[in-house]
Amino acid sequence: MIREVKFADIAIGDTASFSKTITEHDVYAFAGLSGNFNPVHVDEEFARNTRFKGRIAHGLLAAGLISAVIGTALPGANAIYLAQELVFKSPVMFGDTLTATVEVIEKIEAKKRIIFKTLVTNQSGVVVIEGKDTIYKE
Amino acid sequence: MIREVKFADIAIGDTASFSKTITEHDVYAFAGLSGNFNPVHVDEEFARNTRFKGRIAHGLLAAGLISAVIGTALPGANAIYLAQELVFKSPVMFGDTLTATVEVIEKIEAKKRIIFKTLVTNQSGVVVIEGKDTIYKE
Amino acid sequence: MIREVKFADIAIGDTASFSKTITEHDVYAFAGLSGNFNPVHVDEEFARNTRFKGRIAHGLLAAGLISAVIGTALPGANAIYLAQELVFKSPVMFGDTLTATVEVIEKIEAKKRIIFKTLVTNQSGVVVIEGKDTIYKE
Amino acid sequence: MIREVKFADIAIGDTASFSKTITEHDVYAFAGLSGNFNPVHVDEEFARNTRFKGRIAHGLLAAGLISAVIGTALPGANAIYLAQELVFKSPVMFGDTLTATVEVIEKIEAKKRIIFKTLVTNQSGVVVIEGKDTIYKE
Repeated sequence: MIREVKFADIAIGDTASFSKTITEHDVYAFAGLSGNFNPVHVDEEFARNTRFKGRIAHGLLAAGLISAVIGTALPGANAIYLAQELVFKSPVMFGDTLTATVEVIEKIEAKKRIIFKTLVTNQSGVVVIEGKDTIYKE
Repeated sequence: MIREVKFADIAIGDTASFSKTITEHDVYAFAGLSGNFNPVHVDEEFARNTRFKGRIAHGLLAAGLISAVIGTALPGANAIYLAQELVFKSPVMFGDTLTATVEVIEKIEAKKRIIFKTLVTNQSGVVVIEGKDTIYKE
Repeated sequence: MIREVKFADIAIGDTASFSKTITEHDVYAFAGLSGNFNPVHVDEEFARNTRFKGRIAHGLLAAGLISAVIGTALPGANAIYLAQELVFKSPVMFGDTLTATVEVIEKIEAKKRIIFKTLVTNQSGVVVIEGKDTIYKE
Repeated sequence: MIREVKFADIAIGDTASFSKTITEHDVYAFAGLSGNFNPVHVDEEFARNTRFKGRIAHGLLAAGLISAVIGTALPGANAIYLAQELVFKSPVMFGDTLTATVEVIEKIEAKKRIIFKTLVTNQSGVVVIEGKDTIYKE
């Protein structure tokens, strides 16, 4: 279930992905862990009157799916996160099914670093997050 | 508890912060939301033999505290996350007390964007995350 | 709430039951505890195209209701689980109300073991699980 | 992260495994989902005076790790659980690190069924669960 891909076996262009439907449960639990009770996430009366027309998920919850791919599949075990860049392009509504995809775009041999282009899309193909991750692979 | 600071009232140098002790509960719950069951987070036998000498928290859990400050205090309600950059400097062990601090470093009037320098430190003053957030304030 | 029935007071034919509506919250939380993120449980887009036409609950979540009857009512406190057999007959959809029923079918005096026939049905009377539990009652 | 192995590609002897440290969080969350509040799981004062000398995890929580291997790795997506047999051999204490391993022991071609021998061990190599799973692989 948890893979481990060695640094030497990782090639530019390698990809992996993970999909999950984001639910009210996820958003409420993440609010409870982070303390981010911004009303757009947990106050339906407030959120209904915003441009989003309803409660939306935290961006970091969608980002969590990226970390799941990195941490369990590519490179998986012994991956060490050095940096993560996230650009939030579209909101995530409750019930959206997200797919996080990572793709190796660079390997820095001397420092054993791997650079990933990261992408989260929803069930309609809309881009939710575009980003970049830097991983050290022991 | 949830503040809202208007764009016009935000000044360069404004800061806000939020502190929380990160527990096993937090890490296990976040693994369960994200699907990131990397063994360094949930397998003590594995983690003990890494450079960390034990299980560590997910970096995005620490980042969640930054989002809590942005989303509840500065600017709080009606803040819209456009981008988040995170550099993970040190691991977070179970039981560490983190303080997330954000500081306004730039205002882009035309686009109503606020740029924050973000910082997460632990109880010993060690820097856990350095980052930058870009927020649109309606 | 937690009963304890002594071995001597348990008779063949004794029954007890417990009902609960299984929710999205339950399924997502169990995925998070177990690591079982099979897409039929957490990916609505995927699940919609299976024979189930939508996300279904984990079988072990329904089995948990059986364990609740055994562990809190018959025989309750000081019951020790030795074995559990589960045959999954029908899927559990989000929102289904399940009733777990256990019935004593055998007592093994020398070993202080009680054998239960177990059954989980949904709100339409459809059998979800048929099984058998072996309990040691101190 | 979620694999899918086709029926034709599964061979007798194939194995997969998953490890996780079982925590108080896991046990309390599972009690809350299942309703199994047996005092040996959630009442330390009671549990201390049992043969276990402290609170123990629910057997079905350990069984959940088996389902995670089946549901995410072997055969993964599109696996359908038909039956699960569990023999509980030893208790799981809070903090134990469990490894669930499944091994294909039989394939029934006509019915597209796969029979797995399942095993959960702790960090000392003690067998916690021995079992057998029957899976239909579409």
